[in-house]
Amino acid sequence: MTDALNSFLFSTPAMSRVFSPEAQLRAMARFEWALTCALENSGLAEHGSASALEPLLNAEFLDLDSLQRDARDAGNIAIPFLRQLTSAVEKRSEGASRAIHLGATSQDVLDTALALQLRNAGSMLDSSIEQLENALAKQVRAHAGTILAGRTWLQPGPPTTLGLKLAGTLAALRRNRERLRAALYQASVLQFGGAVGTLAALGNAGKEVSAELTRILNLREPELPWHTQRDRVVEVVQVLALLTGSLAKFARDIALLMQAEVGEASEGGSECRGGSSTMPHKHNPVACAAVVAAHARMPGLVSTMLYAMPQEHERGLGLWQAEWEIVQETFCIAAAELEYSISIAEGLQVNAARMEANLDDLLGVTMSEAVSAALAQKIGRSAAHALLRDASDRAIREKRHLGSVLKQTPQILDHLTSEAIDRLMDPRTYLGSAQRFIENVLGDSDAHR
Amino acid sequence: MTDALNSFLFSTPAMSRVFSPEAQLRAMARFEWALTCALENSGLAEHGSASALEPLLNAEFLDLDSLQRDARDAGNIAIPFLRQLTSAVEKRSEGASRAIHLGATSQDVLDTALALQLRNAGSMLDSSIEQLENALAKQVRAHAGTILAGRTWLQPGPPTTLGLKLAGTLAALRRNRERLRAALYQASVLQFGGAVGTLAALGNAGKEVSAELTRILNLREPELPWHTQRDRVVEVVQVLALLTGSLAKFARDIALLMQAEVGEASEGGSECRGGSSTMPHKHNPVACAAVVAAHARMPGLVSTMLYAMPQEHERGLGLWQAEWEIVQETFCIAAAELEYSISIAEGLQVNAARMEANLDDLLGVTMSEAVSAALAQKIGRSAAHALLRDASDRAIREKRHLGSVLKQTPQILDHLTSEAIDRLMDPRTYLGSAQRFIENVLGDSDAHR
Amino acid sequence: MTDALNSFLFSTPAMSRVFSPEAQLRAMARFEWALTCALENSGLAEHGSASALEPLLNAEFLDLDSLQRDARDAGNIAIPFLRQLTSAVEKRSEGASRAIHLGATSQDVLDTALALQLRNAGSMLDSSIEQLENALAKQVRAHAGTILAGRTWLQPGPPTTLGLKLAGTLAALRRNRERLRAALYQASVLQFGGAVGTLAALGNAGKEVSAELTRILNLREPELPWHTQRDRVVEVVQVLALLTGSLAKFARDIALLMQAEVGEASEGGSECRGGSSTMPHKHNPVACAAVVAAHARMPGLVSTMLYAMPQEHERGLGLWQAEWEIVQETFCIAAAELEYSISIAEGLQVNAARMEANLDDLLGVTMSEAVSAALAQKIGRSAAHALLRDASDRAIREKRHLGSVLKQTPQILDHLTSEAIDRLMDPRTYLGSAQRFIENVLGDSDAHR
Amino acid sequence: MTDALNSFLFSTPAMSRVFSPEAQLRAMARFEWALTCALENSGLAEHGSASALEPLLNAEFLDLDSLQRDARDAGNIAIPFLRQLTSAVEKRSEGASRAIHLGATSQDVLDTALALQLRNAGSMLDSSIEQLENALAKQVRAHAGTILAGRTWLQPGPPTTLGLKLAGTLAALRRNRERLRAALYQASVLQFGGAVGTLAALGNAGKEVSAELTRILNLREPELPWHTQRDRVVEVVQVLALLTGSLAKFARDIALLMQAEVGEASEGGSECRGGSSTMPHKHNPVACAAVVAAHARMPGLVSTMLYAMPQEHERGLGLWQAEWEIVQETFCIAAAELEYSISIAEGLQVNAARMEANLDDLLGVTMSEAVSAALAQKIGRSAAHALLRDASDRAIREKRHLGSVLKQTPQILDHLTSEAIDRLMDPRTYLGSAQRFIENVLGDSDAHR
Repeated sequence: MTDALNSFLFSTPAMSRVFSPEAQLRAMARFEWALTCALENSGLAEHGSASALEPLLNAEFLDLDSLQRDARDAGNIAIPFLRQLTSAVEKRSEGASRAIHLGATSQDVLDTALALQLRNAGSMLDSSIEQLENALAKQVRAHAGTILAGRTWLQPGPPTTLGLKLAGTLAALRRNRERLRAALYQASVLQFGGAVGTLAALGNAGKEVSAELTRILNLREPELPWHTQRDRVVEVVQVLALLTGSLAKFARDIALLMQAEVGEASEGGSECRGGSSTMPHKHNPVACAAVVAAHARMPGLVSTMLYAMPQEHERGLGLWQAEWEIVQETFCIAAAELEYSISIAEGLQVNAARMEANLDDLLGVTMSEAVSAALAQKIGRSAAHALLRDASDRAIREKRHLGSVLKQTPQILDHLTSEAIDRLMDPRTYLGSAQRFIENVLGDSDAHR
Repeated sequence: MTDALNSFLFSTPAMSRVFSPEAQLRAMARFEWALTCALENSGLAEHGSASALEPLLNAEFLDLDSLQRDARDAGNIAIPFLRQLTSAVEKRSEGASRAIHLGATSQDVLDTALALQLRNAGSMLDSSIEQLENALAKQVRAHAGTILAGRTWLQPGPPTTLGLKLAGTLAALRRNRERLRAALYQASVLQFGGAVGTLAALGNAGKEVSAELTRILNLREPELPWHTQRDRVVEVVQVLALLTGSLAKFARDIALLMQAEVGEASEGGSECRGGSSTMPHKHNPVACAAVVAAHARMPGLVSTMLYAMPQEHERGLGLWQAEWEIVQETFCIAAAELEYSISIAEGLQVNAARMEANLDDLLGVTMSEAVSAALAQKIGRSAAHALLRDASDRAIREKRHLGSVLKQTPQILDHLTSEAIDRLMDPRTYLGSAQRFIENVLGDSDAHR
Repeated sequence: MTDALNSFLFSTPAMSRVFSPEAQLRAMARFEWALTCALENSGLAEHGSASALEPLLNAEFLDLDSLQRDARDAGNIAIPFLRQLTSAVEKRSEGASRAIHLGATSQDVLDTALALQLRNAGSMLDSSIEQLENALAKQVRAHAGTILAGRTWLQPGPPTTLGLKLAGTLAALRRNRERLRAALYQASVLQFGGAVGTLAALGNAGKEVSAELTRILNLREPELPWHTQRDRVVEVVQVLALLTGSLAKFARDIALLMQAEVGEASEGGSECRGGSSTMPHKHNPVACAAVVAAHARMPGLVSTMLYAMPQEHERGLGLWQAEWEIVQETFCIAAAELEYSISIAEGLQVNAARMEANLDDLLGVTMSEAVSAALAQKIGRSAAHALLRDASDRAIREKRHLGSVLKQTPQILDHLTSEAIDRLMDPRTYLGSAQRFIENVLGDSDAHR
Repeated sequence: MTDALNSFLFSTPAMSRVFSPEAQLRAMARFEWALTCALENSGLAEHGSASALEPLLNAEFLDLDSLQRDARDAGNIAIPFLRQLTSAVEKRSEGASRAIHLGATSQDVLDTALALQLRNAGSMLDSSIEQLENALAKQVRAHAGTILAGRTWLQPGPPTTLGLKLAGTLAALRRNRERLRAALYQASVLQFGGAVGTLAALGNAGKEVSAELTRILNLREPELPWHTQRDRVVEVVQVLALLTGSLAKFARDIALLMQAEVGEASEGGSECRGGSSTMPHKHNPVACAAVVAAHARMPGLVSTMLYAMPQEHERGLGLWQAEWEIVQETFCIAAAELEYSISIAEGLQVNAARMEANLDDLLGVTMSEAVSAALAQKIGRSAAHALLRDASDRAIREKRHLGSVLKQTPQILDHLTSEAIDRLMDPRTYLGSAQRFIENVLGDSDAHR
């Protein structure tokens, strides 16, 4: 807010531009111009009014300092904005100045400007998600058969593949992208209701002007003004938080795989990334940390949007204002998080040998389930589970491979041959439906190479 | 959680039953029975296994005390549940007991049980929303023309109608109902992946068993297991919070209208509702307070769900567990809030005379916009605004009606006749598109009487 | 964050300066200079090193653009900051440059700079709280005897005084001020631990350098470095949220009293404050809304700080970064909220006549408790309560004054004379300990005039 | 709330008892009894009234079902509670029944009962924290010299000791214990203000009754009633969240050390803890997960408490009610989290050999800082850092020990002998002030063995 020093973590230059003061003021100018157009078309503004506003669409006529100073007494920026706009138009056309903002209220211009900004911001995020999906799909395909230990409770379990792991993120990402499109579609609505949402100042021309305004701005027309019904805007922010949550899960996993003691994958990135001010050997997972940091801020921001929903009567006291910085913050955070995620996904360095070595180092105990499942069909799940639990404990205690322990356990040998044990202990044979799941996500059948 | 004393505010008996321990255990038993059916159909469980589980579907065989005690060491209730289930089945059929839970993991049974519970809970909420929509639609229709002051910043503005006010809530409610249906459709998915999401324990029968299990439970089959991809569940909770937010806005408005100094509406309710322990004259807005209280708890709960999203690898460390009580809490809170909202909407008492009187008491200043708008077309918005601002100030200062002030203001009389002023000052003529907006929401044209 | 347009609501210029990029970089330069001093004093930096850094204390040597660009790869601004600092010092003294940052890690400079900023920001808030306390104390004193209806559940109850109402805020404010001082005292600690918190790079000189550094910066020395023990910083933010919560309660009450239908008090403010873009007659409670808006953002920010506590090992992955913008945001929000609160408290306009008139308009029913209490001593609380409830209902139904109803109720007259009823119905006689409570808060006995 | 199935994670039996319906009702009965005592002592209740209430202190006379049913209309449980209490007392002494609740309001009994419960709950937590402190102090002492890699960004750094790591948690715990005591002291205040906080129903006896009531309940007397000034209660909840945050940091670290690939420590626990339903070999960090899960719920709960602060006028509309279940939930969660943390701390299994082996496996690169620091004194920090960065990269790339790389690097050998390199590469020599920091925390000098 006041400190751009750390904005490298929580925004991107492009998204910051979408929500810059200038961009917001341009969106506001655009609303007022479009309103004048609509009024002119309806005969409520004199001919030529709209063209008097056109040169002001770039918002450069505004004096930002006085605008912000005046906002303190006005309670919002729309009031001083309109004062400056009216005065600028007056100089060009007294007639045009008379129709400015006719029928509208401060919140109409602010909310519609927001709708315009959301649309821009949303399509920017949409492209980023697509880029990330492509990068992930490529990795899923490339690593559909790259075996590593599945891990639950931060403990190793049976094998899975890196492709399947990443496919989970890819599928979540697609759901989030669809949610974002749906939410943005819902939120791309005009706000135009006048002082208390009746458009009374337009008499019976409200319908016509509203329809025309909607058309000009290429938005959708709501059933009725929604000044204090904020669900559509809140929904957009909620979807962003789902998105950042899915990304944080992805980044957290990579950071865990990147631990020196695990060493199975690494976020890659430029040569100079991740150095330490003190430790010459360090390659820190900077992008992963940025993604985790970004998501950590979203739940609180979403909660504020929800808290702010019960806005009183036709315009709330304070809760609407509470939304203002949050909406843009969440878009900026999501944009930054996507950018960092793309860099992780595109630059991902995979150490398949280490994955295999880690599985070996675990003395085969992660395969205990495979043997247990095979045995269960003969002696029941409970008995099989108990036998394998004992054998695994012994393998760990005696630092021996589970296979070798099993081959010396009579109760096992009663049911499984030595060859069967070897086959069961091979991670490659114990991937079940992994491949099918990957194909489901990729939507093709050439996933495996 | 530990105190049911205040559950009258935060749950309903019916919703509490959906999430009772017994109901959850029944849903878990149902998963295991369905899995055995699917395994039997696939030849992975011996013939007759499923029928051995059928008598246990009511979950009455379980010893809850030992289940909870054992859960402490196990980390979840699924493990002791399965132990007790297996032992109960063993007594009936040793063969059937062998196939129990085959291929599945604890989270499979817990998440799928949740999906089943969500569906029940969701359809219960859906009915309640429908009931509330009907009650609101009736009030919107009845009060389409009931005029009261619009209010912004808790200050009176131009007139609106109670019908339009309530139509805003009705429209939001419909959006939320649609969102809830969509989110529940998304969340009605099977969870079935085994230890690490590969269904490896089923070899290449995973696909068949999974499809069959989905069919039996009448759920949808996901592209891949979603143990640590929680977006669908979080989305459901987010939608509940949007719903409670819309309801809180409604209740907050009614409570404000119910202030003795306003006295325009009242939540109604039973004779004995809202008494005070000390103040004999009090009729407290108990239902409104309950709705406000309930929503106040949702943002924090949503934030926890979002915070819990980055679950590690194939099963998280603690964050999944953090969801457990939240999901049911949010459904219970939403159910209670809907019930209280229905009682408000159905019992709403409207004092139209007081609404009119309040408008009168405001000395007509709330009509200043109407005059200003009429004047603006002649002398421009700024000049008109300034004139009316002065006149309104004078009306208030001198406690005179704005109309009378205006009729003595030469700059006004230059442009408006006394009759025009009277007409402009009549709230009935200054409702703009209110009627049309109401029709949009009601979807009919007989809104107005 | 990216949009300063609305910063008029969520910061003050003075507080923004405390947390400006420049101020943070100066605080960081100050840490490095102080460290060089300490090292020099301990013989670990060559003589004259510190004086080589002195001219750089204003941080003007820094190239902010490249600093931010490099931060993206580094993961924090400390690394590029140190690079630029070292290069600037090298130009002056190669010897001095060698000792820069010796023994320290990025987080040492960032956290200690934060401690220095917190101290400045805290003392600024402290002054503002004092100013607000003074303003409130004055109003409490002035209105110790100004009678208005107490209100519960937004319904009128027995009388209280405006002085007592404000005294509650004053007392809360004092507690918050004390909490803030205590929390800032705790948080004014040096962070100095080196790479992993052992100060290993300083060998056995750690103790000496650390003590010296503490002395120079006039901070306190912690028992041990606290890189991933964030409780002190979180506590400060929590206290700010308590403060903003107390202020929001105050502002909310004033806004409610300011409703036209109540009209008992008003936030005052400049002539031009609170105008509407459409409604010429409006005087909006702009300051109250700003305070409410500001507090609405704090709970979410606090929750993020708490979420971010479980930082891994000796330096966390992402959660520390999540704190960065939050700490300053909360200080800026608190500063803005205090400024607006001061303007409300200092400019408060009280309409005592309206307070009295409102009590009268309520037909005396708010005095029902007084009569009920008197009666209870004769016929028991329940019976008295029931009698008064009936009488109040009748008064409201028949639009008669409660006193007149009571005087016609035989069961009342059995126990109370007409004069006793009149006396009991006088709000002035029913203020109980209000005066004493006010004196407790003001700490004097001249509260009443 | 409605589902006790998972309460094993989020409460303890003992803490659940403190906040059980029965315990709350007993605390409420205690307030009413104490009030009658105070009234009797002041001559406002007839002699013997208090003794008529004494047999009811166990709250067993209450019919909970009808109490909860009636609460729905009343809006709180105090009103039906008082009805039942009055009726029970009436049967014993009509005179005593007349004085029941005299001067008080519903919130007085509910808030004071809460204060009494908080005190019990707080002293229970205090004991648990003490037990945890003792367990941790023992481990700090035992492992003051147990060397392991420090880890930042989840990457290994220079060595630290397990004692120092745990000392950080111990110190934070002590701060939290002190905070809890201070907050509970502040919150142990009587609530007694009557309908609107003036104690008007007691005439001028308010002071005397209030003082006596305070004395009997052994609470503190506030300056004035605090019905809508909730800061003290919110502060208690905030402190609990700081506590759970510190515990979650501890548990998260242990869970990370417990990863099979790290294997340096383990949470211990009973034989049967942490088994998996599918994976026979698993020992899951169940207690760590429980601690992480519990903390994850606190930030949202704190945010609700903060959001609920702006309670209107003399009694809020809904926000007070929002607190009710939260306060007890947070105490229950904190109690569970402490219990699990104690089990971790007491049962902690440390694998010092693995710690050493892991350091070795890292090829000595974690010692790069030590060499860099030594070198920096000769060639400056930047040059030294660059040299070591290259050498570390080479060590990793060529899978050689950093020491061996360094000994073949001429620029290094110019300044350091082979023996110096060996000495610098020994983790034991590079612990800096670790020992001193531990002593600071333990407050003694026998920390090291």
